[in-house]
Amino acid sequence: MTDTSVFPDPTYRDTVLAPLFDGVKAHYAGGMAAINRAHLVMLAETGILPRADAARIATALRDIDTETDLSALTYTGEHEDYFFLVEAELKARLGDLGGALHTARSRNDMDHTLFKLALRTRTDAMTGELHALAESLLTKARAEAETLIVAYTHGQPAQPTTFGHYLAAIIEVILRDAERLNAAAEGLEHCPMGAAAITTSGFPIDRHRVAELLGFDGPLLNAYGCIASVDYVTGLYSAIKLIFLHLGRLIQDLQFWSAFEVGQLYVPNSLVQISSIMPQKRNPVPIEHMRHLASATALRCDVIVGTMHNTPFTDMNDSEGEVQQAGYAAFDSGSRVLRMLAAFLPACRINTVAARRITDAACITITELADTLVRDEGLTFRHAHEIAAATARAVIDQGAPLADGYAAFAQAFEAATGQAPGLDAEGFSTAVAPETFVARRTRPGGPAPQALAEAFATYDAALATLKAQRQTRTARHAAADSALDTAFTQLLET
Amino acid sequence: MTDTSVFPDPTYRDTVLAPLFDGVKAHYAGGMAAINRAHLVMLAETGILPRADAARIATALRDIDTETDLSALTYTGEHEDYFFLVEAELKARLGDLGGALHTARSRNDMDHTLFKLALRTRTDAMTGELHALAESLLTKARAEAETLIVAYTHGQPAQPTTFGHYLAAIIEVILRDAERLNAAAEGLEHCPMGAAAITTSGFPIDRHRVAELLGFDGPLLNAYGCIASVDYVTGLYSAIKLIFLHLGRLIQDLQFWSAFEVGQLYVPNSLVQISSIMPQKRNPVPIEHMRHLASATALRCDVIVGTMHNTPFTDMNDSEGEVQQAGYAAFDSGSRVLRMLAAFLPACRINTVAARRITDAACITITELADTLVRDEGLTFRHAHEIAAATARAVIDQGAPLADGYAAFAQAFEAATGQAPGLDAEGFSTAVAPETFVARRTRPGGPAPQALAEAFATYDAALATLKAQRQTRTARHAAADSALDTAFTQLLET
Amino acid sequence: MTDTSVFPDPTYRDTVLAPLFDGVKAHYAGGMAAINRAHLVMLAETGILPRADAARIATALRDIDTETDLSALTYTGEHEDYFFLVEAELKARLGDLGGALHTARSRNDMDHTLFKLALRTRTDAMTGELHALAESLLTKARAEAETLIVAYTHGQPAQPTTFGHYLAAIIEVILRDAERLNAAAEGLEHCPMGAAAITTSGFPIDRHRVAELLGFDGPLLNAYGCIASVDYVTGLYSAIKLIFLHLGRLIQDLQFWSAFEVGQLYVPNSLVQISSIMPQKRNPVPIEHMRHLASATALRCDVIVGTMHNTPFTDMNDSEGEVQQAGYAAFDSGSRVLRMLAAFLPACRINTVAARRITDAACITITELADTLVRDEGLTFRHAHEIAAATARAVIDQGAPLADGYAAFAQAFEAATGQAPGLDAEGFSTAVAPETFVARRTRPGGPAPQALAEAFATYDAALATLKAQRQTRTARHAAADSALDTAFTQLLET
Amino acid sequence: MTDTSVFPDPTYRDTVLAPLFDGVKAHYAGGMAAINRAHLVMLAETGILPRADAARIATALRDIDTETDLSALTYTGEHEDYFFLVEAELKARLGDLGGALHTARSRNDMDHTLFKLALRTRTDAMTGELHALAESLLTKARAEAETLIVAYTHGQPAQPTTFGHYLAAIIEVILRDAERLNAAAEGLEHCPMGAAAITTSGFPIDRHRVAELLGFDGPLLNAYGCIASVDYVTGLYSAIKLIFLHLGRLIQDLQFWSAFEVGQLYVPNSLVQISSIMPQKRNPVPIEHMRHLASATALRCDVIVGTMHNTPFTDMNDSEGEVQQAGYAAFDSGSRVLRMLAAFLPACRINTVAARRITDAACITITELADTLVRDEGLTFRHAHEIAAATARAVIDQGAPLADGYAAFAQAFEAATGQAPGLDAEGFSTAVAPETFVARRTRPGGPAPQALAEAFATYDAALATLKAQRQTRTARHAAADSALDTAFTQLLET
Repeated sequence: MTDTSVFPDPTYRDTVLAPLFDGVKAHYAGGMAAINRAHLVMLAETGILPRADAARIATALRDIDTETDLSALTYTGEHEDYFFLVEAELKARLGDLGGALHTARSRNDMDHTLFKLALRTRTDAMTGELHALAESLLTKARAEAETLIVAYTHGQPAQPTTFGHYLAAIIEVILRDAERLNAAAEGLEHCPMGAAAITTSGFPIDRHRVAELLGFDGPLLNAYGCIASVDYVTGLYSAIKLIFLHLGRLIQDLQFWSAFEVGQLYVPNSLVQISSIMPQKRNPVPIEHMRHLASATALRCDVIVGTMHNTPFTDMNDSEGEVQQAGYAAFDSGSRVLRMLAAFLPACRINTVAARRITDAACITITELADTLVRDEGLTFRHAHEIAAATARAVIDQGAPLADGYAAFAQAFEAATGQAPGLDAEGFSTAVAPETFVARRTRPGGPAPQALAEAFATYDAALATLKAQRQTRTARHAAADSALDTAFTQLLET
Repeated sequence: MTDTSVFPDPTYRDTVLAPLFDGVKAHYAGGMAAINRAHLVMLAETGILPRADAARIATALRDIDTETDLSALTYTGEHEDYFFLVEAELKARLGDLGGALHTARSRNDMDHTLFKLALRTRTDAMTGELHALAESLLTKARAEAETLIVAYTHGQPAQPTTFGHYLAAIIEVILRDAERLNAAAEGLEHCPMGAAAITTSGFPIDRHRVAELLGFDGPLLNAYGCIASVDYVTGLYSAIKLIFLHLGRLIQDLQFWSAFEVGQLYVPNSLVQISSIMPQKRNPVPIEHMRHLASATALRCDVIVGTMHNTPFTDMNDSEGEVQQAGYAAFDSGSRVLRMLAAFLPACRINTVAARRITDAACITITELADTLVRDEGLTFRHAHEIAAATARAVIDQGAPLADGYAAFAQAFEAATGQAPGLDAEGFSTAVAPETFVARRTRPGGPAPQALAEAFATYDAALATLKAQRQTRTARHAAADSALDTAFTQLLET
Repeated sequence: MTDTSVFPDPTYRDTVLAPLFDGVKAHYAGGMAAINRAHLVMLAETGILPRADAARIATALRDIDTETDLSALTYTGEHEDYFFLVEAELKARLGDLGGALHTARSRNDMDHTLFKLALRTRTDAMTGELHALAESLLTKARAEAETLIVAYTHGQPAQPTTFGHYLAAIIEVILRDAERLNAAAEGLEHCPMGAAAITTSGFPIDRHRVAELLGFDGPLLNAYGCIASVDYVTGLYSAIKLIFLHLGRLIQDLQFWSAFEVGQLYVPNSLVQISSIMPQKRNPVPIEHMRHLASATALRCDVIVGTMHNTPFTDMNDSEGEVQQAGYAAFDSGSRVLRMLAAFLPACRINTVAARRITDAACITITELADTLVRDEGLTFRHAHEIAAATARAVIDQGAPLADGYAAFAQAFEAATGQAPGLDAEGFSTAVAPETFVARRTRPGGPAPQALAEAFATYDAALATLKAQRQTRTARHAAADSALDTAFTQLLET
Repeated sequence: MTDTSVFPDPTYRDTVLAPLFDGVKAHYAGGMAAINRAHLVMLAETGILPRADAARIATALRDIDTETDLSALTYTGEHEDYFFLVEAELKARLGDLGGALHTARSRNDMDHTLFKLALRTRTDAMTGELHALAESLLTKARAEAETLIVAYTHGQPAQPTTFGHYLAAIIEVILRDAERLNAAAEGLEHCPMGAAAITTSGFPIDRHRVAELLGFDGPLLNAYGCIASVDYVTGLYSAIKLIFLHLGRLIQDLQFWSAFEVGQLYVPNSLVQISSIMPQKRNPVPIEHMRHLASATALRCDVIVGTMHNTPFTDMNDSEGEVQQAGYAAFDSGSRVLRMLAAFLPACRINTVAARRITDAACITITELADTLVRDEGLTFRHAHEIAAATARAVIDQGAPLADGYAAFAQAFEAATGQAPGLDAEGFSTAVAPETFVARRTRPGGPAPQALAEAFATYDAALATLKAQRQTRTARHAAADSALDTAFTQLLET
């Protein structure tokens, strides 16, 4: 068909190509340089390119890197994108040889390699922040191992436990989230380079070598999959989403605990926004900010995952530059939540007076009294429960804490059993104390000190394992940077 | 509890307050100035503030606006946020009087007013772009009213129609989307000012006057709702989401129609990325970019709507600055899709050769032959279908277009009926021509020229109504800008 | 290609065809009968079918309806689906003529007509339940117009208002949600019949007549759009989603207000699950159930809307039977929320003692004291605020309610101004009473009785309008049922 | 407050309690019986209950199971739910002793244990179906290892590869999805029993023993986490979602490949819905059904995950019965996709004529010609590309396949280099044959036979590992069933 139009259409240039160019400048120029160098080293080592040619290309690459002021580049439409701009620079300096760098590779394998490099940096940072949060919570949990709090079910006071025990529950979730994140991070460690456009190349390339020089654990095997599969993206954002969905639940508790009427959590002045006229109005606004940042982070993960829905299993832009970059907003807001929470929780304290007040008012140790009667007085469950319930009703009617309810208890005991309780006033007082409640819960996973200490030890071990796994990756990345630098320098010096 | 900590905690400052400050600078400073002026005018007009005091405040506000280099401000933590910075400036210039501007208002009503002002600007721009798209498609549809295409069901060629008829179907969807967007835009036109913190004020404020000066259609009634309800946000983003979800379906068709093997849609060179070595490989990449930008736009709307999930029905940060700003990314990417599509579709052409080739190969006019036999030959449906099916089988076996199948048809006719067909060769050829197929579909909503022309007229009318509705709003906004300017200037000159 | 396989593949039969058949039985058999009858009446009226033929078909249709025990049908694979089963029955009874009913129509236009019929029944029921909820809240709000509650911002006590004022805020949201639902319901009122497969028909059909006989407001215009556009679905589920997203926010407040420590909302025994041993533990579990049912309803809407993402703009199964039916789960759970909430809220009461306790403890009327000093004592804002803040600090230190703080106030007043306050003890007590706070908020949208009464009147009017709009639709549907019955009976009696 | 209302409110009974009861009947009655038995065995073994008492309870449990016709039970409101109905039965038979079974446990730990048991059954089934799909694809891929297809990028023909190579790419994704599913399945293998309400119990329970008797890998440690954490749910549904999101991409390719104009994939008659009148219209509708079922499955996973958003980190109904059951719809539709796909793909064939036609028309082997010239003729890249492009242009102008382009090639070669090519006509023909293209791609991950065979071997190994992991779990579950049966029978026989 007759067609005198010329690429690029101005609207396409402005709405797509220019933003893409800016994105590459901001996020991928460094990775592209690394890929160029690693691929060139491999081409030279395998003899696909004569070493002298490779050395000339290396010199040109180094010079371009040195001489280009990336921040000053603006998109003109002359070159389709940043890649072609670099290629044009190479050809301007080297003539035909400039095109040889692109032997046995393609935009397709380069792109997904770039995206993995960019994601692994961000994922590593987030992993570090998540580990730091786990660590700060572990420290806090140990410090608060005996600090009594009220635990809730269905939004109502239910039982006493310790702040350390509560935090341990969160820590377990975070550790499992960290395991999921670790698995997703491993999903970034397989290199697409060598897949070329779709099917590898007819040249005798060494995929393992390029993978190694770029710090990957090895090549991603199937070449079609290298340029078509996106589960390194979807798996990662799914794992990230869960972190913030779960932290959002902790945040809901913090919001409730710090409500004026509850007051179990004391948020320090440094984290409270106040009103000059209402000195008692303390808005723990950081909690709200963490909530919406966690929400937005989780939902931004859905943006990326959802964009893949009903796309073909091929190389396509729906998994590339723009979409990749859209995901970085999730890392940004997620990082803010992790850092804020790691600062917030350690800074807060339990208001033990408030916790005790609720404990008393809500009679939340009453079930332990019933259990005590079964164990120590040999009562049936029905009798034990009747006596406990009658005691609770009596103290609530009196507006008194359960600890003051011995007389009511003794009366209920006699009414139910026809005899006086073996439990004396002090024993009663002990039986219904939240300290006792906690001390008796010695089973694995319980809040009693020894049980909790043993749990902490397992968390230490799990966190250490996770850190070691991260360290294995970061060490490999660093070693590869260095090895690539060495190999490239050797090429330069040929 | 003892607490020597001082606001703001450095992590809070860095992860929350500083980003918020930058957001206000970028998005809300102008709106805040307008609100300050409108509220001040009302305070003076109602006598809540003496006119002389109001004039002094007005002068200070003007001076601050003039003297502040917004872009040079960086967040220090000295003032909680930009609002307090302005208030501190006022107090530095006016002493106690500086605080009087805040009489009978609150951050709460101001915030949602700001957000509505910011959204209405963006919504108006998007509305304009959507109308422009509708208009460009209407022009294209009229131009292509008789251009034959293949219409598909279940991904397979099904019937001929015209490109204009297809575009008309899209236009109807866009017009309904524009109606939804219009309804959502109206949802921004009720002013929260005067709600103050939650319950209005004990001062004799005039809510209608402030609403009027800010260009709203009136106040939003219930004061609690003014600071707690978020459906102006959720309703808007829900409406926007649907636009891009629906356009994404058109985009899928464009992708398929422009596939090499189909080729029904010719994408011009200005919108195709090519390969120097593979001259026949024409990648209509703008389509893919529109797809993922449409996806991301729709899903970014979900970020905002989803953030509201399970939040309390109160004033809260989950509906405020940061979250509001997160939504602007949807406007940005959405605008790119609308502009790109309005450039793309008119630039494309139907490859009529390709469309005809598929029409012939897939025998997609065969049902009209059967209908013709029923109508003109008085056959039963069974006979008509048998003859048509036999004819189709024969031409497919011969690899010939249906138009060449008269002999096969005549033979099938005689086999089925025992007599020769009334339809002669020319009549047959006419009966199975896609032109005939289309011309006979004259019922309302059909592709025949008159039916289509009547449909276009209804779209013209619907679009004109939508434009008028938009115009009513923008005219009110402009008039209010002017009225506010006048009233504020009068105050200055008091 | 050689192919001896026979339809249907057993796995396809079991995983797709059989479930589809069961779905049609459960949801669409009645609609299909109505469509058959309406289409037949039109074919006869337009003369496309001779009246005598139409009468024979009508008789067969009636007989099939009478003789078929729908519930006893199980899918065998003999017929592709329920439609073909009916057609086979017709042909068995009428021979060739059995096929004539399908003249000038298609599965495509029939399907979307069926889906609209099914959705309009459900949407009408939900509309009724939403209106009933609004009405019950209006009644409750009027009854509680003067019942004082604590209103919260950022999860902390902020100001007094009335329960009626709070409920009015919710009512406004519900009314706007009802408007959105009404607009979506109108989106169901355009009939696809006559679009046939894609492009209408070459027969002289009367699309308006079929639309009328089926109770629609008219035909949906563009024939391609009739079988390809899905915004009647996406628009509807988007509107429904918002209802439950917004109600979820009310539910969060109910959860907080009924927390043991807050206790502002008293949930009656009939709606509280208790523990025999912990008589004070009252779990208002219906609130949690409403929360997750509202969440699931909103998210089920996303299932339907999301399924359309990146599908082609054509006739396709992604918008048909199975997907349509998946949406009905949202209607089911949504209906449960609406009914439960309409029962729950009226049954609850404000615990005025608890509300007063928080009001006092949190000094939430203190801003009104400052405003009073500005208005009545002519103080500057700074002075007024200083005095109010000092008063608040003093009473909080004493653990006393603000009403007991006159001495502290007088002292602060003198310290700030060097003179005694004009306000006497009784005046002070009045100024800081929550009753006064509310009574003084007389501006539109405020909680003062007259302002609130005026607001209620606007809600009455808005609800009446919405009910009338619904009534217009339901009346049309009923009239059409009757007209169709008459016309079909006349045909039978031909 | 005065309150004469009686539980349950009728609306609550109808909208919440009755559906919950039906859900327990349908999904959890068996699990509850197992938990009752395992807990009882543990109570006896630890001596918490005297063995004789435990034996009496065991007998009653067995009798209730035998005598209760579950399907005949309907909810009356007499008992709050099914649990209390069983407890009432126990008490009716055993008096006070009936309550002893509930020693040291709670609805809270029981519920999450029930949910895990129900999920592990479903997850195991889905795991088996996913493995079966992987296996069927592996078999198919081996059979099609040398079947040439056209591979696409950006929706356009790009390079030849083999169907086996393409399927291998999918298999890699499925294997990674299966790893994610395996990790999530492991997340179900930690038993909450012993957490009791929140904090374990004061009784000397043996959490490991109960876990063992129920087939878990061990107890879930932190007791608070046992009843509050939901990541076993969110992690599982996130993993499931990805499976169907990724399969949806394969399905998009199947849809495109089977389009009339493409025809690369031949779908057999058993899986195609046809039209009697349009014999050439073959609708491969199962593909569409797989698409929307995959979409709905993925989105149903979001329903469950999204319901957890902004809920408290406590025991709550938002993670319990109703919500759990809502998730089972995802298993149902997901299973249909997995089974359908495992039947569909093996039944399909590549239409090699169609694939060859596209290969020729689109010149997709042209890059290999250029590479050949570089490798074998020692040309620069620029020269090689120029010659290849000129050749392609020439054959396209002639409408001839590339294989017929030797003359054009020779001419282009001479024009570029001034000499005749070393490559003769046969060599040229070989160089541009798709068979050669594939055969030369011998690098790891490439489609050449040896490379592909090596890849298959790694998939075999990975799948075997996954199967073994599944088998470890199912063997433990079966062994536990048997051990529990033995222990319970011993108790009965005490």
